[in-house]
Amino acid sequence: MQVDIIAEAEELDNSGKRFFIDRWERDVSNLNSGYGITAVLEGGGLLEKAAVSISVVSGTLTPARARAMCERGRPGVDIQGGQPYAATALSLVFHPAHPKVPTLRADVRRFEVGGSAWFGGGCDLTPAYLNEADARAFHAFWRRLCDRHRPAPSLYEECKAACDAYFYLPARREHRGIGGVFFDDMAAGAPGGGGAVVAEAFACDVAAGVLPSWRGIAAARRQDAFGPAEREWQLLRRGRYVEFNLLIDRGVRFGLDGGRVESIMVSAPPLVAWRYMAEPKIGSAEAALLAVLREPRTWA
Amino acid sequence: MQVDIIAEAEELDNSGKRFFIDRWERDVSNLNSGYGITAVLEGGGLLEKAAVSISVVSGTLTPARARAMCERGRPGVDIQGGQPYAATALSLVFHPAHPKVPTLRADVRRFEVGGSAWFGGGCDLTPAYLNEADARAFHAFWRRLCDRHRPAPSLYEECKAACDAYFYLPARREHRGIGGVFFDDMAAGAPGGGGAVVAEAFACDVAAGVLPSWRGIAAARRQDAFGPAEREWQLLRRGRYVEFNLLIDRGVRFGLDGGRVESIMVSAPPLVAWRYMAEPKIGSAEAALLAVLREPRTWA
Repeated sequence: MQVDIIAEAEELDNSGKRFFIDRWERDVSNLNSGYGITAVLEGGGLLEKAAVSISVVSGTLTPARARAMCERGRPGVDIQGGQPYAATALSLVFHPAHPKVPTLRADVRRFEVGGSAWFGGGCDLTPAYLNEADARAFHAFWRRLCDRHRPAPSLYEECKAACDAYFYLPARREHRGIGGVFFDDMAAGAPGGGGAVVAEAFACDVAAGVLPSWRGIAAARRQDAFGPAEREWQLLRRGRYVEFNLLIDRGVRFGLDGGRVESIMVSAPPLVAWRYMAEPKIGSAEAALLAVLREPRTWA
Repeated sequence: MQVDIIAEAEELDNSGKRFFIDRWERDVSNLNSGYGITAVLEGGGLLEKAAVSISVVSGTLTPARARAMCERGRPGVDIQGGQPYAATALSLVFHPAHPKVPTLRADVRRFEVGGSAWFGGGCDLTPAYLNEADARAFHAFWRRLCDRHRPAPSLYEECKAACDAYFYLPARREHRGIGGVFFDDMAAGAPGGGGAVVAEAFACDVAAGVLPSWRGIAAARRQDAFGPAEREWQLLRRGRYVEFNLLIDRGVRFGLDGGRVESIMVSAPPLVAWRYMAEPKIGSAEAALLAVLREPRTWA
């Protein structure tokens, strides 16, 4: 799937640039082992920076991580840590060059410890400019996909609410983007929530849906006009993306605690700005985005 | 002192730009109160972004903050939280436009709780390019200043070691810059460390030393030549500055937990870049900087 996504991303990018494919092996000094393939395209046409990565690691749960998992109610985890675990993930981030094309983030992951396995993942959109038709189309796509796995009680509504809840930056009182779907701690083969979702099949479907959910939006929005003011706003919004990732994101914070830093920080935008009190004017397109980031809407 | 620093910074900047002076009052809804003056200059000649801020706040210790203070050994703090506190601070960050002029950060602060007061603060240099003569001059300045307060056991050596220890980013195995001085939990009027330091007098002297420790270096380095490659390296190094502030810095992390976000994030650089595996070539000027960030040296 990584290979397929890379091939389609290069085609969409359409600049002749290729992903740099970086295979790495994990330092085994701390009883952990594993490998990964971090694929990065920088300075493309559509994609100012894109990363499509996999990792396959195993090791021993640290007490901090074990405690966090117990607090989230995972059964079979010894709160003291020390159990062997195995984790695999496919993750993706696209930071488009064009300010009107939304940033895309997605991942799917499998985690195994103490004889149980869980799936997690999701796909969400972080625009610098709100396009309501795009937001509706994106969410409608994910509702249809989720409905194939559990229409009632609605898996989409559960994953949409989880996405809004997770991608929230309390210091700014802003959600990171306009959401999408997010799920975690979905037990393999067991009912997810109230109905029967086969977690692995759902995770595979989520991964397969990532590019189809975004490519139409990207193709339309890259035709829109923009100037230096829109570019600056995009760079400022990327600042919020960095703030969320470094302050809040569980994957980033746990990952930086002993993980391969370049494979984690590859999700950072290529160019980012911070300006004091960069509040948009009332009634502007920038203010319309902030309104929906402060109060998430129902899109589908 | 804020007024004096602003006046001198505008003179050094020499672009005709003035600091924007933003007086704010703190939301009193959570039993906290106070005010501050955040002064910001953006897009100057020497100073691409500079902030010189004061804050005067009081409130009730949260359990998390009380616990952290107890863990650092402060007497008189109830680990449950709930005690009234008062805190004042003067803080400064200069992000120069020129890649050869080092970023300057400094603060002094006073914290009072449970009938005791402590001072803290420091001043340190974060260059994108190492200039050894500048590093020696900067540290020699701070050694002389510290020696006036306690030559033996050396207050400078204590504060230099504390600065190296504090400004460290474990995920990168890098110190943030070439250090300077840093002190915390220095009891008011009581002996600091092994000898008699009057904390308030030392804190005032640190604040007064900030610009004198840097202005000669800035004046010399802004004459140096640079091109787009040096500018890009500066933007990449600023990425580490952001990573440290959001992942590690106590002031930023506590501040964002209920504080005024714009007065905290004003320390963020104006423009920042992240690039995958941006490792410098062996033997380059960029590699020389990394070597000293990985293993701090004795400069004075």
